[in-house]
Formats: sequence, C-alpha cells, structure tokens
Amino acid sequence: MDMLTFTIDTDCKTPVYQQLYSFIKSEIQSGKIPFNTKLPSKRKLSSYLKLSLNTIQTAYDQLIEEGYVVSIERKGFYVSKIDNIIKLNVPKEIGKIENKDDKSNLKYDFSYDGVDLQTFPFSNWRKLTKEVINEYDKEIILPGDIQGHIDLRKSIAKYLHQSRGVNCLESQIIISSGTEFLIQILIQLFDKDNIFGIENPGYEKLNLLFRSNHANFKEINIDKEGMMTEEIRKSNANILCITPSHQFPSGEIMSINRRIQILNWANEAGNRYIIEDDYDSEFKYSGKPIPSLQGLDLQEKVIYMSAFSKSLSPSIRVSYMVLPKHLLKRFKEYLSFIICPVPIVDQKVLSTFIQEGYFERHLNKMRTIYKKKREFLIKTIMSQKCEIKIMGADAGLHLLLNISNGMTEEELVESALKKGIKVYGISKYYVDKSKIKKIPTILIGYATMNEKEIAEAVKLLHEAWF
Amino acid sequence: MDMLTFTIDTDCKTPVYQQLYSFIKSEIQSGKIPFNTKLPSKRKLSSYLKLSLNTIQTAYDQLIEEGYVVSIERKGFYVSKIDNIIKLNVPKEIGKIENKDDKSNLKYDFSYDGVDLQTFPFSNWRKLTKEVINEYDKEIILPGDIQGHIDLRKSIAKYLHQSRGVNCLESQIIISSGTEFLIQILIQLFDKDNIFGIENPGYEKLNLLFRSNHANFKEINIDKEGMMTEEIRKSNANILCITPSHQFPSGEIMSINRRIQILNWANEAGNRYIIEDDYDSEFKYSGKPIPSLQGLDLQEKVIYMSAFSKSLSPSIRVSYMVLPKHLLKRFKEYLSFIICPVPIVDQKVLSTFIQEGYFERHLNKMRTIYKKKREFLIKTIMSQKCEIKIMGADAGLHLLLNISNGMTEEELVESALKKGIKVYGISKYYVDKSKIKKIPTILIGYATMNEKEIAEAVKLLHEAWF
Repeated sequence: MDMLTFTIDTDCKTPVYQQLYSFIKSEIQSGKIPFNTKLPSKRKLSSYLKLSLNTIQTAYDQLIEEGYVVSIERKGFYVSKIDNIIKLNVPKEIGKIENKDDKSNLKYDFSYDGVDLQTFPFSNWRKLTKEVINEYDKEIILPGDIQGHIDLRKSIAKYLHQSRGVNCLESQIIISSGTEFLIQILIQLFDKDNIFGIENPGYEKLNLLFRSNHANFKEINIDKEGMMTEEIRKSNANILCITPSHQFPSGEIMSINRRIQILNWANEAGNRYIIEDDYDSEFKYSGKPIPSLQGLDLQEKVIYMSAFSKSLSPSIRVSYMVLPKHLLKRFKEYLSFIICPVPIVDQKVLSTFIQEGYFERHLNKMRTIYKKKREFLIKTIMSQKCEIKIMGADAGLHLLLNISNGMTEEELVESALKKGIKVYGISKYYVDKSKIKKIPTILIGYATMNEKEIAEAVKLLHEAWF
Repeated sequence: MDMLTFTIDTDCKTPVYQQLYSFIKSEIQSGKIPFNTKLPSKRKLSSYLKLSLNTIQTAYDQLIEEGYVVSIERKGFYVSKIDNIIKLNVPKEIGKIENKDDKSNLKYDFSYDGVDLQTFPFSNWRKLTKEVINEYDKEIILPGDIQGHIDLRKSIAKYLHQSRGVNCLESQIIISSGTEFLIQILIQLFDKDNIFGIENPGYEKLNLLFRSNHANFKEINIDKEGMMTEEIRKSNANILCITPSHQFPSGEIMSINRRIQILNWANEAGNRYIIEDDYDSEFKYSGKPIPSLQGLDLQEKVIYMSAFSKSLSPSIRVSYMVLPKHLLKRFKEYLSFIICPVPIVDQKVLSTFIQEGYFERHLNKMRTIYKKKREFLIKTIMSQKCEIKIMGADAGLHLLLNISNGMTEEELVESALKKGIKVYGISKYYVDKSKIKKIPTILIGYATMNEKEIAEAVKLLHEAWF
C-alpha cells in the first residue's frame, strides 16, 4: 500500500493520533486493508498527511499493541491476519427478571430480616464516622489485616467475653460480612470428607450454601432441647451447625444437659466440631442471657460465630467467628488469600462504637423496645381469643404460632397474603419435610413493625384466619 | 431438700435473683445438690430467705430455661441430670502464630499490593461520606439489594461503557468485595463438571482459590499474545480466566487476533466461557486504553470482572462483575442467598464519587503519577548499565526484570532481602513450574514508593546483584 487517505476532523475533540488509529483499525476490521498489506512508512505518511512523525508513531504503536499491525524489523509495518470481522454491540434493555417475592401489594410484612427502623443510632454513628474519616490515616488506604482490623477484633473479644461468656483472644477472631461468608471459609477449611450436620428445621440458607458449595451435609432432627444426640450419631455428621441460645426457627433454648451431651459427643473424636451460631442472643427478655456453648468448651471443639445484623443493622454487613487455635493455624496456612471483606473505615467506626460503650447502650435500649413489641404482639394475638398457641422462648426477634383453624400452612400463608400480610410457613425451614409437625405453624418476625402496625396486621390476620 | 441456705450480698451490684440463680447453679454443677433433688417450693424459699416471690420465680425460671432444673406439674422443681461437671476456662495468650513474611527488617518493598499513599482523595471522600451519612436515610439500615446498590451499579455500568467499551446494563452487575469473592460465586454458579483454565504464569490466588473450593482447574501456558489456543484445546478447560488488557504477571497485552481466536473458541460450544479480569486496565501510559474483550463478545460468552483495589485503594474492598443475561438468571435462581457484602454507606459514597466525576479525575491524576514513577524507575534501572532487561507493556503498576548476572531467581530474591529490599520471583506465579523461563525474572511493583525511595531501593538492588 503506497499511501493512506485520511481526513482529519479538526473540530473533533478526539486527538489526531486517535482519529488516525481508529481509521486504520476500521479499515482493517472491514477488510478494506487486507491481511499482509504493508502500511506506508511513518516518514512517508507523516509528510503525506502533514502530521507530525510523533502522531503517526503513536497511532502505529497503538495498532501494534492491540495486534492489528505487526512491525517487522528492517521491513516495515504489516497488517495482521484478523480471524473475523468484529463490531461492538450495544445491549438492548434486558428482559426484567422478576423477583420471586413481589412485595408491591403488601401492607405489612412479618419478615424476620431487619431491625427496628426508628432507633438506629444515626447521630452517634455519624459522629464516629466523621471522627474516623477526619483523621488523616494511611491505614485507611493500606491493605488491611486479612482477619480484620485488630482494634475491632479486640473490641469484639472483650464484648464476647463479658456478655456471652466466650473465651477468646482477638487473634482467634476472623471478621467477614455475613455468616454465609464465614460458613464458606469453614467449608474450605475442612476437607471434603467432613459431613456437616444442620438442624431440621433450621436456618434455610445453610442447606442452600452447603449444596451450592458441594459440601456434604445431613439434616438432623431437633426436639425441644435442640439437636437430638441419637440423631446426631445416626447421621454420621461430624461438624454440627447449631443455634443453642435461641434455636432458629423453633425459638427454643438448648438445655444445659443437651449442651454437655453434644460437647461430650464432640470430645469423642478428633474430627468432631460444633459451629455455634449465636445470631440473636443479645435479645433475651426475661432472666439472664444464656451463656454461649463456646464458654463451656474445654477441648477447642466449638467454633463460635455471630453478626451485627440483628443487634445493629443488616446493612452493616459485619460478622465474625472465633476459631479454636489449631484451626486458626490451619486457616493461616491454607486460606491466607481470603482477605477480610469489610472496608477498614467501617471496621474502625464499629470498633469505636463498641469500645466507647455505644453498642452496649444501643443493645439495652433495643432489648427494652423489642421486649415491648413482643409483649404487645402477644397481647394483641391473645386478645383475639382464637385457636392460636404461641411458641418459642422469651427471646429474639420472632415467634411461632400454632394455628388450629382447619387451614393448612399453605392456606394460612395465602389467606394472609390476600389481606396484604406476609407471614412465613415453617415448612421452608425443614430440609426433611417428613418431620413437619401436624399442627400448621407460622413464623412471624416483629422487629421492623411498630405497635400501630402490629395491631392492624394482627386484626387483618384474624380476618383472614377466623 | 428442705431448704437452701444462701447469703445475699447487698453491696454487690448483681441483682438478687441473679445471685440466687448463680448460687443454685454452682451448687448443682459442683454436685452439692445432686440429681433429682427436689428444690424448696417458691413460696417456702421466699419466706425463708425473706425475698420476694418474684425474685425466686425469676431465678427458678432461669435455671429451668438453661436446663439445670425441671418443673414437674403438681410436684415441684427437680434438679436435672447434668452429665458432667463443667467450668469456665480462661484462655492463656495464644502462641503467636508467625506470619510467613516478617517485614520488620525491610527497608523497601517492591510489593504489587497497594497504591500510591500520598494521593488518596481524602478530602473529597470525606465530604461525600459526610453527605451520605448526614441524610437521614432508611436505606442505610434496611437489608440491601443482593446484587449491590442500584445507584452504584448504574455508575459502574456507565463508567464501564465509556472507558472500557463494556456493553452492559446495571441489572447485569454483581457487586462484591474482592475478585476472590466473585470467583467463589462463579464456582458455585457453574456445576462440578466444568473445568476452569488459568494462565500459567498467572495470578497466584486463583489456583489456591480453585483448590480450596475443590473446583476443577488446569493451568494453560501463555505466550507473548496470551493464552495459546492450542494449549486451551489440549487442556479440556471450558471456562478460561484471563487478563487480556495486561496479563498478570507478564505485563503483555493480548493481541486482537488472539482475542478473536479465544472468542471463536468460546462460541464453538454452549458450555464455554471466558472470565475477563480487567484488574488494572485503568493504567495505560501511552496510546489509548485497550478496549475490553467483553466489548467484542456478541454471544454472551464473557464474564467481565474488575475492582477498585488498584484504581482507588485496596482497603475500599469493592469488586464487581458483569454477568451475561442467561447466567444472571441462573444466579437469581440458585444463588439469591448470597448477599452483597459491601456496606450500603460505602456503596453510596463510591457511587457518588463516580457519578460526580471525582473518580475520573482521580484516575487521570494517578495515571500521570504512575507514569512518572514508572519512567523514573526504568530510567534509574537503565542508568546502572547492567544486564537487566525490562519486560511488560507500558501499563499497570508493575514490571518484570530479566537479570543475567549468573544468580538464580532464588539468589536474586535472597541477596536483595539481605540489603532490606523485597522483590518477587516470577516462579511463584507458575502452577506448572516446568514452564519457568531460563533467564531469572523478578517482578517489581512500584505503586507505593516515591521517587526518592525508588532511587535508593534500585541502588541497593544494584549492590546486591552486581
């Protein structure tokens, strides 16, 4: 090819070298300049187009870098073989993928996700955030500690020791966002031979998580005291996931006897462990909080985990676990490439929030508020004088209703929905559906609703069910 | 048991019911009150201890809840069988687990992790954070969208389209923290039959990640243009993980020809995909940025991913991927329990940072700064007039050195370390070590160092090596 004819658009903001590059590229893409064509030398093209040698050089370099042109020493510039003609595509609007739960017609949602919306300590949170970001602090831009910021780990260790009887050092804590991320770490920490045992009924995400991670798991039936030891033995599971402080969803507290039985079971073999999910233990409304199972463990068998989703807000996205020392060692050896996902600013704000006593005050305040809500909800339901039995310990942010009005669980959920009320059938929490109790049972969460809303929603539920 | 003798400590802050509860509990634990003992009735104990009935009731309730005592209707309160005597243990200081890399004696670290420490846009970031947290905004405490905040996804989609030629809608974006979390989602999204193909040499975390997740993977050798197509076919991998804009660690840019070959390979079968990791494409110092491979893809074969670790800061912990529409559908069906781990405040701040043009300005500024650093580093190395060849395209935050002084790679790293300089041998990035090039090659990152530090560090390297 002797020469390239090309018109410069001097009004255009695009630099000239880029116009030239785009022009040659599109000529190659369209096949107008075919494979193996020799391009004009830089000097020739420069004098022909009245452009600086530098402009030509930059355009050619870009073409070479992207592979449209090759430079052959002492011979010149040749067009490469491009396998296909390519064009940029512009996407059309994606077909809206519907969410399974369309909540637009809902009046009230007895959802279990979420916290009270009126009492988040915005002003203190703001104040602390400003303090953290006002310090010029290089830490905020350096890669952080993979286990999470040391200050936050110290705050959590102290809090856990004082309020949950957990025995741990900050060095044993791993911070992540959401218990699902912690479980994923544990799936990776234990090899494929292990079998996780999950509560039936239990937290519905667990079986999805184990399934999608191709981890072995067995569902293990519970009674009023928690996972049944004979069922544990029958299952062959060696790592149990349990919620002893407030079983989800049954709301029962694991008895001291069952705790000891399960610890003894774990102590019988080296590969047995217990994952204690202490998800909402902050909220116990009568008597003292039940100390953690981890606090009873002398043999490093319990992996304690919890999160700030219930105690502070689900959007905070901070969870943590306490690893026994030998597992921590394994974590450091094999999984040190998993970096704490929580931004450092957030870790520092939360740490100060705990250290300076705001968290404790917030918890005490919320305990009173949730206790009042719970009492109001129960009183309102009882006042309807219907065949409803309320189940679950005086704790947490949800309770169960046994309803004997002749409807099936599905009918209960659907008739409520027709009145604009979302409630949750207990069946979804069972992996082994054959164990579902005969009396239809509904789970209702009450954290997000206020008393006026609770009163109206219960009235509508009564209309739907009786 | 007729009666319980118990002394109230009136000076103690602990409530009386709790003192009574603790006393009875420890008596049971120690075996002083044996199994099956009948406790005194509440009324009797109340009059005996001169405590209100309510106090006794609360203490008994707590003992029942924790399982130390059972209440038998019409009979009274009995001590449960406790399988073992238990005590709280207090942990001793954990043996300090040493980090593999003790950095205490280091003068300079040519680390590839990290960004320039002087230029983080603190004041703008602060301003935006304050604006976000100053709005009273319920969103901040509600559970967020599982794919990430819609505003941030819109900002990213627009940015990707304009600056990277990526074709996508915000609905296709999934936000997470760190590309490792995105890869874990993809491992779950594709079933066990799939084989991931990773670059050899390549990003060292990938093989660890696939290994610890028990996913099938094969390493695939690269040449100067990127993954070799014949090697791809030989490997039987069907999902490729590649870095076409700036191969890590070689620093090469994938040619247009290779791009098209790989897209064509993917188009040949329904189960073939390409994961394009565009980790540091913002930093190209001469010519135009290379458009993304995703922009060339007409068949929904490319999963594009990137992060803000290099462009903003590793501690920001925000990454994202663009899923083809049919994969997005699968994600929503099977993995909707995976919730975006980034706190909502951070998502909103970052979104505003991009929308209001701060990100673009920051990138332009950083491009100039890194370009200058790179040029200074190269000039300084060249001025030593030694047997060092510099490799890698004029892009990114690292380069490679081929050193021909007779030392092995290991000797190069160790002799540098003796002078207090940390550099990185290329071998660690190879899964198939047999493919390591004969000329010893060292990777050095320069983002975190200033010119003075670079000059001193290069001088020390020269002393170590020549």
